[in-house]
This record gives sequence, structure tokens and C-alpha cells, in this order.
Amino acid sequence: MAIFSKGAETMGDLYTSDAKIYPPGGDTISGNTAIGEFWKGAYGMGIKAAKLDTVEAEPAGDQIVEVGNYTLYGDGNAELDKGKYIVVWKQDGEAWKLHRDIWNTSMPGQ
Amino acid sequence: MAIFSKGAETMGDLYTSDAKIYPPGGDTISGNTAIGEFWKGAYGMGIKAAKLDTVEAEPAGDQIVEVGNYTLYGDGNAELDKGKYIVVWKQDGEAWKLHRDIWNTSMPGQ
Repeated sequence: MAIFSKGAETMGDLYTSDAKIYPPGGDTISGNTAIGEFWKGAYGMGIKAAKLDTVEAEPAGDQIVEVGNYTLYGDGNAELDKGKYIVVWKQDGEAWKLHRDIWNTSMPGQ
Repeated sequence: MAIFSKGAETMGDLYTSDAKIYPPGGDTISGNTAIGEFWKGAYGMGIKAAKLDTVEAEPAGDQIVEVGNYTLYGDGNAELDKGKYIVVWKQDGEAWKLHRDIWNTSMPGQ
């Protein structure tokens, strides 16, 4: 569950080259190019913005494990989905990037 | 996504006292007592067994971040669900226990 506010075009750049995401309703997606395409597709399906609230971010060795809550918004700020995520961040040169990214909805019946 | 084969009665014992799980379609559940109740409920809804396949398990500081795939089975070994999970393990005395646990289905349309 990444940061739409930075724009769908550059989403893949936020991930390590060997990153993996685990989208609900689909298989694991590997590599920041494929991940960038996935987010472009999600953005094309009507997601306009995402709010991400970090609940905890614990440094562990050379990585940070972040747990948080997300809310997705569509046109007119309509709430499309909300849920929670775990992201494992890794340092890539000087930049921290998303390395593992899993999330699920908190909405019942989905 | 935890280990049903150990029996639903003792599921809570596999988690740290301040563990959290992030079930799809619901809110975060905190503490191994409430988590044990959650898994008892899931077991009561027809899950008979779970297969867990670790894809990677990376030590990081005082924890291990495990990524894996799960398959849930019901009566007559019917496949009920399959998906992926991330578990953060922490050492609790001599035992490694689940500390953070999130998963989602890989089946389309859910």
C-alpha cells in the first residue's frame, strides 16, 4: 500500500528493484517495474488519493517494519476502501524504499 | 495466518502477549487472548487445516520477518482459500512467537 499522492507514474521508483507486493485477490508481484504497472492500473480504476497513517515503525537490523492504516479515496473524496498494511523498508543507497508490501481491507464482506 | 495444525485451543499461545493480527474484512485484533478467540472462531467456521509454505524468513535485529503462502482446507480436504502472509516473529523467553500477522487471499473477486 503505497503513496498515491506522489503520482502513479513514479510509484515503481519508491520500491527496491527486487521488491515484492502482495495484493489482495491476486498473486505476488515482483520487481519495481511490474509494481509500478500494478499501481498505474489501480490508479486507472478510480483511486485518486490515499491517506496513510503509520501506527508503528520499528527499526530492525538494516530494515524498518512499518505497520499502518490506509484509506483510499475516489472522485469527490468518496471513501473507496480502508484497511491496514505492513511494509518492510530497506535502504537503497541513501534512500529508504519499500521492499515488501502487503495490505488488506478492514471493510466487512470483502 | 497461523498454524491450525496445532489445534485451535492453543492458537493464542503461539503469539506474544502484545501481538497484533490484521484480518481481512475486520479491524486489528490485539493481544494473544483475543487472537486465540479469533482463531477459534475461524476454526468454527469450517477451516480444518492450513498449509503454510515459507517463501523467505529474514532475521532482522531481534525479530524475523517471514513471508509465505497459505492454503486453507475444509471438510474432505476441500480448498477454501489460498493467499500470502507476512509474520513478524519475536523471541519471548526461549520461544519464538508471532508478533505481527497479516495476510490476504490470492483468489480473484474477494
